[in-house]
Amino acid sequence: MMLPLFFIFCLFSSSHAAVQDFCVADLTAPQGPAGYSCKDPSKVTVNDFVFSGLGNPGNTSNLFKAALTPAFAAQFPGVNGLGISFGRLDVAPGGVVPFHTHPGASEILFVAEGTILAGFVSSANTVYFKSLKMGDIMVFPQGLLHFEINTGGTVAIGFVSFSSSNPGLQILDYALFGNNLPTELVAATTFLDTAQIKKLKGVFGGTG
Amino acid sequence: MMLPLFFIFCLFSSSHAAVQDFCVADLTAPQGPAGYSCKDPSKVTVNDFVFSGLGNPGNTSNLFKAALTPAFAAQFPGVNGLGISFGRLDVAPGGVVPFHTHPGASEILFVAEGTILAGFVSSANTVYFKSLKMGDIMVFPQGLLHFEINTGGTVAIGFVSFSSSNPGLQILDYALFGNNLPTELVAATTFLDTAQIKKLKGVFGGTG
Amino acid sequence: MMLPLFFIFCLFSSSHAAVQDFCVADLTAPQGPAGYSCKDPSKVTVNDFVFSGLGNPGNTSNLFKAALTPAFAAQFPGVNGLGISFGRLDVAPGGVVPFHTHPGASEILFVAEGTILAGFVSSANTVYFKSLKMGDIMVFPQGLLHFEINTGGTVAIGFVSFSSSNPGLQILDYALFGNNLPTELVAATTFLDTAQIKKLKGVFGGTG
Amino acid sequence: MMLPLFFIFCLFSSSHAAVQDFCVADLTAPQGPAGYSCKDPSKVTVNDFVFSGLGNPGNTSNLFKAALTPAFAAQFPGVNGLGISFGRLDVAPGGVVPFHTHPGASEILFVAEGTILAGFVSSANTVYFKSLKMGDIMVFPQGLLHFEINTGGTVAIGFVSFSSSNPGLQILDYALFGNNLPTELVAATTFLDTAQIKKLKGVFGGTG
Amino acid sequence: MMLPLFFIFCLFSSSHAAVQDFCVADLTAPQGPAGYSCKDPSKVTVNDFVFSGLGNPGNTSNLFKAALTPAFAAQFPGVNGLGISFGRLDVAPGGVVPFHTHPGASEILFVAEGTILAGFVSSANTVYFKSLKMGDIMVFPQGLLHFEINTGGTVAIGFVSFSSSNPGLQILDYALFGNNLPTELVAATTFLDTAQIKKLKGVFGGTG
Amino acid sequence: MMLPLFFIFCLFSSSHAAVQDFCVADLTAPQGPAGYSCKDPSKVTVNDFVFSGLGNPGNTSNLFKAALTPAFAAQFPGVNGLGISFGRLDVAPGGVVPFHTHPGASEILFVAEGTILAGFVSSANTVYFKSLKMGDIMVFPQGLLHFEINTGGTVAIGFVSFSSSNPGLQILDYALFGNNLPTELVAATTFLDTAQIKKLKGVFGGTG
Repeated sequence: MMLPLFFIFCLFSSSHAAVQDFCVADLTAPQGPAGYSCKDPSKVTVNDFVFSGLGNPGNTSNLFKAALTPAFAAQFPGVNGLGISFGRLDVAPGGVVPFHTHPGASEILFVAEGTILAGFVSSANTVYFKSLKMGDIMVFPQGLLHFEINTGGTVAIGFVSFSSSNPGLQILDYALFGNNLPTELVAATTFLDTAQIKKLKGVFGGTG
Repeated sequence: MMLPLFFIFCLFSSSHAAVQDFCVADLTAPQGPAGYSCKDPSKVTVNDFVFSGLGNPGNTSNLFKAALTPAFAAQFPGVNGLGISFGRLDVAPGGVVPFHTHPGASEILFVAEGTILAGFVSSANTVYFKSLKMGDIMVFPQGLLHFEINTGGTVAIGFVSFSSSNPGLQILDYALFGNNLPTELVAATTFLDTAQIKKLKGVFGGTG
Repeated sequence: MMLPLFFIFCLFSSSHAAVQDFCVADLTAPQGPAGYSCKDPSKVTVNDFVFSGLGNPGNTSNLFKAALTPAFAAQFPGVNGLGISFGRLDVAPGGVVPFHTHPGASEILFVAEGTILAGFVSSANTVYFKSLKMGDIMVFPQGLLHFEINTGGTVAIGFVSFSSSNPGLQILDYALFGNNLPTELVAATTFLDTAQIKKLKGVFGGTG
Repeated sequence: MMLPLFFIFCLFSSSHAAVQDFCVADLTAPQGPAGYSCKDPSKVTVNDFVFSGLGNPGNTSNLFKAALTPAFAAQFPGVNGLGISFGRLDVAPGGVVPFHTHPGASEILFVAEGTILAGFVSSANTVYFKSLKMGDIMVFPQGLLHFEINTGGTVAIGFVSFSSSNPGLQILDYALFGNNLPTELVAATTFLDTAQIKKLKGVFGGTG
Repeated sequence: MMLPLFFIFCLFSSSHAAVQDFCVADLTAPQGPAGYSCKDPSKVTVNDFVFSGLGNPGNTSNLFKAALTPAFAAQFPGVNGLGISFGRLDVAPGGVVPFHTHPGASEILFVAEGTILAGFVSSANTVYFKSLKMGDIMVFPQGLLHFEINTGGTVAIGFVSFSSSNPGLQILDYALFGNNLPTELVAATTFLDTAQIKKLKGVFGGTG
Repeated sequence: MMLPLFFIFCLFSSSHAAVQDFCVADLTAPQGPAGYSCKDPSKVTVNDFVFSGLGNPGNTSNLFKAALTPAFAAQFPGVNGLGISFGRLDVAPGGVVPFHTHPGASEILFVAEGTILAGFVSSANTVYFKSLKMGDIMVFPQGLLHFEINTGGTVAIGFVSFSSSNPGLQILDYALFGNNLPTELVAATTFLDTAQIKKLKGVFGGTG
C-alpha cells in the first residue's frame, strides 16, 4: 500500500464550516423557529456536549418538596436542534410534581431511586397511572397533562428525557394561580370557586 | 401543431396508484403515527374533500353554554395527513370554552360574530389575553392552555383552524374532574381543596 | 398549607429566554429555512398574537373582482414557525380566484357568505370540484392547482386557513403572463398560441 | 483476545423486525400519509434497493418530444419513506418539458448531454431561467412552476432527483386541458379564450 | 352553579377512535415509514406506557464486557411514533461499547454509576471525548460514530435516551466482520490488512 | 375583457420579502439547526440556483483513486433548506470510495459510466451489495455504512443525490485513523490490532 500524496474529499477536510452534524447553541444570538443559532464550529469543544449538573440533588425545600434540574438547550447548548434533552427530578417523601404539560415534547421518566406514582390524562379523559419502582420507565405523550408523586418513605430520584431540545414546561398551578389573570376570569374558565382561586393565588404568587 | 399519437408520462396518466397528493382517511383501517390509512384513490370523490356540517349552530344547551363542532380527520377524512383541520365554535351569552389544550396543533380562532375574550398562558406563566371583536383572529401556540369567553350580549360564533388533521383536545375540567382519578390524587397534584374537587367531580361526572 | 418560601423550577420562572413556546417574527432580522428570527420574548405582547384586518372586505375593483387579504407571517408575526396562517377572501358576483397554487401549504376554504364553485386538479389530472354554499369547507392539498368562482348573485366571502405560516401563492396567470418570460418561451412551454399569450401579457403586465 | 461465547445486543442481531433502517414499499398493502406499508424485512433483497430502468432512453415520439422515466416509490420500492427519488429525462431536439410542478418535492436537474434551457417562476412572479450545458445542475424549489426546453441540435439527457419518494407531478397542460373540467370553467379560471381552450382540449384529450 | 344536563364536545368524549394522542405499536400489524400501526385504543392500558426491564443489570459476560438493554418501540410499544426511546447500559470494568452509530437518532448518555470515557467523531473528523463521572450526561449527534469505555475499577451503569422510537444501531465490528461480506471487499473498503480482517471475522462470526 | 386598473394580491406582488419559496444560503451569516440564514431575496439571481462544477472529472490521484465533488449547501447555496443536494463521483480503475456514512441524508447513486460494485450494511448487519452498470441507480438509507468500488477496467463516473442540503460525510478510515484519537482508544473501541492502527494512522494522517 502506498502512502497518499493527495487526499480526496478536500472540501470536507479543509473546512469545518462545510459540515453541520450539530448546531451548538449560541445563547447570545437570535433564535429562530428551529432553535438557537449555531456557535462557530471552530470554537466548539467537547464541553459543549457534556453537562455536569445532574449528579447533585435539587433543592426540595419548597411547596412541592420537589425539584427539576433541566438540561435543555438553554442550559445544555450541545443539544440545540438535535431533538433531545434531559433533566433530573428529586422528590422528597410526600412531595409531588403537580399536573403539568410539555407543549413541545414527549417525555420518558426513569425511576432511579424510590417509588413514584405517575400518570397522565389522554384527550379522551382516560387516566393512565401506575406506581413505578426503581428501574421502571414511563412515557408521557406530547402535550398531555401528567404528574408524579413520591409515595414512598424515602427520597425519590428520577431522570427525564424529552423528544425536543426545548420541551417547554407549563405547570398547571402556576398557569392558573401564578400570574395576573383576574380571579373572575380564572373562575369562569375553570369553574373553580372564587375562594379557592384566591387561596391558591396566595400560594402561587398570583395577583388580581 | 400536430395532434400527438403518443403521450409521455404514461406511467403517471395510467395509474392513479402512482400518485399520492392526498391520503383520504379510511376510517375502518388501522392508523399509524402519521394518521389513518389512505382510502383507495379510485374511490375518492370530491365529497371526501368537502365537509358541510359547519353552517348550523352547535347545541349550546350545556354547562358551558358552548359547543365545538370539529372537522378533524375523524369527521372530515379528506384532511388526513395534510396538516390542517377546522371547526366551528358557538358560545351563547355568558358561555365559555374553559381552559383546554390541543396537544398536537397550534390554533387560529376567527371571530365571525359577537365578542370573545380569549387568552393563553405561556410556559413562562405569562397570560396573553384580549377582547376580540368580529373579524379579529388570534393564534394559540401548540400545547398551551387557552380559553374563550363570550363577553358580549349576543351569541358569539368562531371558526377555528388547526395545524394538524388530528389536533387533540384536552379540556382541563374533564381531565381533572371527569374521570376516575381518585380525589386524593387530584388534591395532591393540583393543591385544590378536597371539597372543591368533590364538587366539580359531581359537575363533570368524575368518580373516586 | 404553608406558603412557599422557595419555588421550584426557578430556571423557568426567572428566565423568559429559556422557553420558546412561540417565535414571534422579527421582520427586520434575517430569515432561515424554518422562518423568521424570533422577536425578543420580553417585548412580545398579546397584540403580536392578534390580527385585526379581516373584519373589512378587500377591494374587489380589479380584473378578478376578487381580493385576498393574507394574515401570513409577514403580516401576522405571531404565527411564525407555528405551521398555520389565515386569510380572507372576497369575491364579487362573477368574480374569480383564478388557478393558483400554494407551494408550501394545504388550505381549507370556509364559505361564510354566498356561493363558491371551488375545485382542484390532482397529479393524476382528475378534477375535483363542487358548488359550496355558506357553511361548507373544502380542503385543497398542498401544491395543487385550485380555483374559486363566485357563482351566486351576491358577494361571496370566504376564510382560508393554511398549514404553514408562509404558504406562498403562485397565481397561474401572473406566473405565465405577468413577468418578462419571452413570449416564445411561454408558447413553447404551454402550447398556447402566440396571439393568446401577447393578449394576456397585456392584461397581466408582462413584457417580452 | 478470547473468542466470545456470548454476544451482546442479542435483541438486535436475532431479530430483523426490531430494526427499521428502511421501509421497502409493499405496493399491495395500504398506504398512509407517510408512504407505503413496509415489505416484510426478511423478504427484502438488494434488488429492492436497485433500479435498472434508467440506462435506456425514453420514447420521445410524442407531442412534447420528451419523456420522463420515473423511479419514484411506485416504481422503485426501496426509496419509500427515505425522502428521495430519481428519474431520467430525454428531450429530442426542439422538445420540451412543459410547465409543471411537483407538489411534494424540490428537484435537482443534472444535464448529462446536450443543452437545456430551464427555468422556474417564484411566488413573487420572478422568472429564473438559464441555458444549462452538460455538467450543470439547477434546483427547482418545491411546488413552483418550472420547465425545460432542448435548445440544442442534439438529444438532451437529464437526470432528476427529488426530495421525496413521492414527489407528484402536475403538468399544466394536462391539468387544464386533459380532463373534463368544462371549457367555460377553464376560461373563467385562466382568462384564456374559449377557442384556445377548445383547441388544446383537442390536443391533450380533454372533454367538456 | 347548575349541574349540566348536556355535555359539549360529545364527539370527543364518546369516541376513543377520534383522538390520537399516542399510537401504541401493534407489533403484529404492518409497519410504515413513520412506525408501527396503532393498537386499538380501547385495548390500551397503562402497562403499554410502562417498561420494567431496566432495573436489572444486563449480562456483560461477553466479548465487550458490556450490554445494552433497549426499550425501543419493538420492546416498549408505548413510545411508537413519539420520537423518543430509552435503554440501559452496563459495562464491566475494562468493558467497552465499541464504535457504533444510531442512524435514526441523537442520543444522550447519563452516567449513573462508575466512570465512562465517551466520545464521538464529527464529519470533520474531529474527536470529542471526555471522561464522564456519575451524574454527567453527554450528547451524541445523530448518525455519528461514538463509543463508551469503562475506565474505572467498578461496574459502570448508564442510561441512554434517543430522539426516535426506533433509533437503529449499527455496531462497526459487526457491520465489518459479522456478516458475509467477502474479505477482499472488506479489505478494499477499509484498507485493513487481510489477516486482520480474517482474525476479526473469526471473533465476530463473519464468513467469506 | 377589460384591462385591469387595480391588481389584487398587492401584498404579494409588491413585496419580495413576503414570500419564501426558497432560502438561498447567506454563507456569511449565522446558521441555525435548519440551515443557513437566507440571502436577501432582492439579491438572488438565477445563478444562485445553478451549479456548474460537475462537468469536469474530480482529481483521482490519491490513495482511493476516487474523488467526490459536492454540491451541498456550502457549495451550492440555492439548495439551502430545500432537503436536497447533489454531487459527482469519479473512481479510477481499482479505485474505491471506502466505507462511509452520511449522518443526515439518504443517498441515490446513479452510475453514468463504468461498473461500480456498491453496497450497504443494515442495522441488522445484513450486507446488500450488487454490481451496478451504466444506468443503474441504488439507494443507501440514511446513516448506514456503504461503499463503492470501481470493478471495471475503465473510469467509473457516478452522480449522487441526497435527501438533505447538508448530508454530512463521515469516512470510516478518517474517523478512525485521521485524527488524534489515541491508538489505545482506537484499539479498545474497534478490536483492531495496535500495529494495524499505527500503520493506518500513518496512511490517513492520524496522530497519537
